[in-house]
Amino acid sequence: MKVAILGATGAVGMQMIKCIEEQSIDLELKLLASKKSAGKKVKVNIAGKEKEIVVEETTNDSFAGMDFVLGAVEAEFSKMYADAIVKAGAIFIDNSSAFRMDKDVPLVVPEINGEDAKNNKGIIANPNCSTIITDMAIYGINKVSKIKSIIASTYQAVSGAGIGGMKALDEQVEYLAKHSDIPNHRISSLMKDGDSNRVNQSNNVGASTTSLEFTSDAFKYQIAYNLIPCIGSFTENDFTTEEMKMQNETRKIMHLPDLKVTCTCIRVPVMRSHSISVTLDLEKKLTVDEVKKALSNVKGVKLVDDEKNDLYPMPLNTTDKDIVEVGRIRKDLVFENGISLFCCGDQIRKGAATNAVQILELFI
Amino acid sequence: MKVAILGATGAVGMQMIKCIEEQSIDLELKLLASKKSAGKKVKVNIAGKEKEIVVEETTNDSFAGMDFVLGAVEAEFSKMYADAIVKAGAIFIDNSSAFRMDKDVPLVVPEINGEDAKNNKGIIANPNCSTIITDMAIYGINKVSKIKSIIASTYQAVSGAGIGGMKALDEQVEYLAKHSDIPNHRISSLMKDGDSNRVNQSNNVGASTTSLEFTSDAFKYQIAYNLIPCIGSFTENDFTTEEMKMQNETRKIMHLPDLKVTCTCIRVPVMRSHSISVTLDLEKKLTVDEVKKALSNVKGVKLVDDEKNDLYPMPLNTTDKDIVEVGRIRKDLVFENGISLFCCGDQIRKGAATNAVQILELFI
Repeated sequence: MKVAILGATGAVGMQMIKCIEEQSIDLELKLLASKKSAGKKVKVNIAGKEKEIVVEETTNDSFAGMDFVLGAVEAEFSKMYADAIVKAGAIFIDNSSAFRMDKDVPLVVPEINGEDAKNNKGIIANPNCSTIITDMAIYGINKVSKIKSIIASTYQAVSGAGIGGMKALDEQVEYLAKHSDIPNHRISSLMKDGDSNRVNQSNNVGASTTSLEFTSDAFKYQIAYNLIPCIGSFTENDFTTEEMKMQNETRKIMHLPDLKVTCTCIRVPVMRSHSISVTLDLEKKLTVDEVKKALSNVKGVKLVDDEKNDLYPMPLNTTDKDIVEVGRIRKDLVFENGISLFCCGDQIRKGAATNAVQILELFI
Repeated sequence: MKVAILGATGAVGMQMIKCIEEQSIDLELKLLASKKSAGKKVKVNIAGKEKEIVVEETTNDSFAGMDFVLGAVEAEFSKMYADAIVKAGAIFIDNSSAFRMDKDVPLVVPEINGEDAKNNKGIIANPNCSTIITDMAIYGINKVSKIKSIIASTYQAVSGAGIGGMKALDEQVEYLAKHSDIPNHRISSLMKDGDSNRVNQSNNVGASTTSLEFTSDAFKYQIAYNLIPCIGSFTENDFTTEEMKMQNETRKIMHLPDLKVTCTCIRVPVMRSHSISVTLDLEKKLTVDEVKKALSNVKGVKLVDDEKNDLYPMPLNTTDKDIVEVGRIRKDLVFENGISLFCCGDQIRKGAATNAVQILELFI
């Protein structure tokens, strides 16, 4: 089996390599990236065999002979190469939002709707990260009592903005250890190659006199010790693109066309696990014990809900793990048939790379 | 007018002094604290006059001659001294949760129900911090269309746990700049005087070889780069004490005895501003413009909702300010008459000290 990773040097692409190594999937791997990363050497261990792979620059000819292409690039690049991938006869498992809502493209979380993957016409889409983690937390409940609506507030890690997102948090924390603040909390004010309000004099309160200038503007505003209540761009109904994915994609993944979802997406200064506070309105009333029972046999999900021992899901506990943790389960106080809960999952793994590699495994 | 601050050396007590200074309230100030802090000298500027006040140890005799006592201590100490305060003839404006739900005790946010303060029998309670900030954000809406239910998820700053909470975040960030992790994310593992799992060898990956040991265990688990989905203790219905305050106290403050509230309280690594993601179910449908209009004339509230210029409430923007910011206002997608929004406010100021001093000002 020949598999190419498109965007192999990004946070998700590198995690895809790790997932393939961990799962000992026997395949021939091709690593594709932009011209900038071409020539880099990556050591891999595929099905027990150590190897060094040279990253190649992506062109329309890169996909010849491939059986699968795992996409770990932004939507614009997925759109740019999709035709070439399908024409080459490969199946494109795409992590971007480019094709998720296309009628001909299955949108798949293997534990929930793996069988949908079979109906592909060359492209299978990997859902949005917060959506995957939320849907993993609730699909076991939906099997017992159909979900009518969801009200979700997210606590999204900086890794959702890629390596640059994690770098931004790191360098801001480092800067703030030596300086009192970032002017107007605007990252552009201290960007190395920023075009506006460049600040060379530091408003130093600490020991260092050199001003560290930021290299990452993954976020417009300071994210260290702050929250940013806007992920993606605004849509006509005042929700963001990121917020609408939770409704649109969950309807498709869980086969619930009438599902109503209100989502509020907030970026938090956490490195790579997303968390979501979820309230569900169910068709049929369930007790907390019935919900816990429904979740206890669900693949990929760990129930962490032990009040006496202060155990509940925390993003640090799911960091770099494939499991989604669910807890804080309680009978909701607003909806007659409501259930509230809190869940966490690693954004780069189950929110992206792990899920894509699991889709690949459906074909092995 | 003679006013004592009970707990004058804590985060809220010190902020109360600042608020009195800022408002140029002419009064004679007495500063009370525990034996440990007695003798400390505090420079104040009351109504233009500079003065040095020596902190006194609190006893039952401390309140003689006082007109008001501002309480900035934990509930157990409020309960300990309430009788002595009332017997001394002073009005006790208490920031703790001790008396908030007592029938004879008004629970007051001056902008919302200031007139309730008059019906006191010696004690007036200052509400919970997240509750004050949420209620400030929504009381203008409630005037136009009655609120039937609220689904809220909080993003609560570490200052909610006092000076120790802020110290904990600071020293954890400092530790993690030099070490790969905190063992099991448990603060007890590195506490200076901790009784369990004391770790003297650091799992050092950085340059420093000395292990910084923590002095604050305000949080059981690491809060830096993490979230803790438990504030307060668990109650019978699996909600926490902190979460139930949002329903119980909002009913009393806003005179909405049948209001239903589902609240999920999450601690986030933000220094001193709380944020809340709020979904309201209203009696009568309102457009987004009607909501914005309702909020534009509300005292103590700033509408920050400009999608085109990327302006929305952020905790850093309300830090050390008295104003509550409200934005991200949208027609909700679950409730027929629903409105969703996001708000931020400083936990130490409007969430505690400012509100208490405003109650005092009702009597001037």
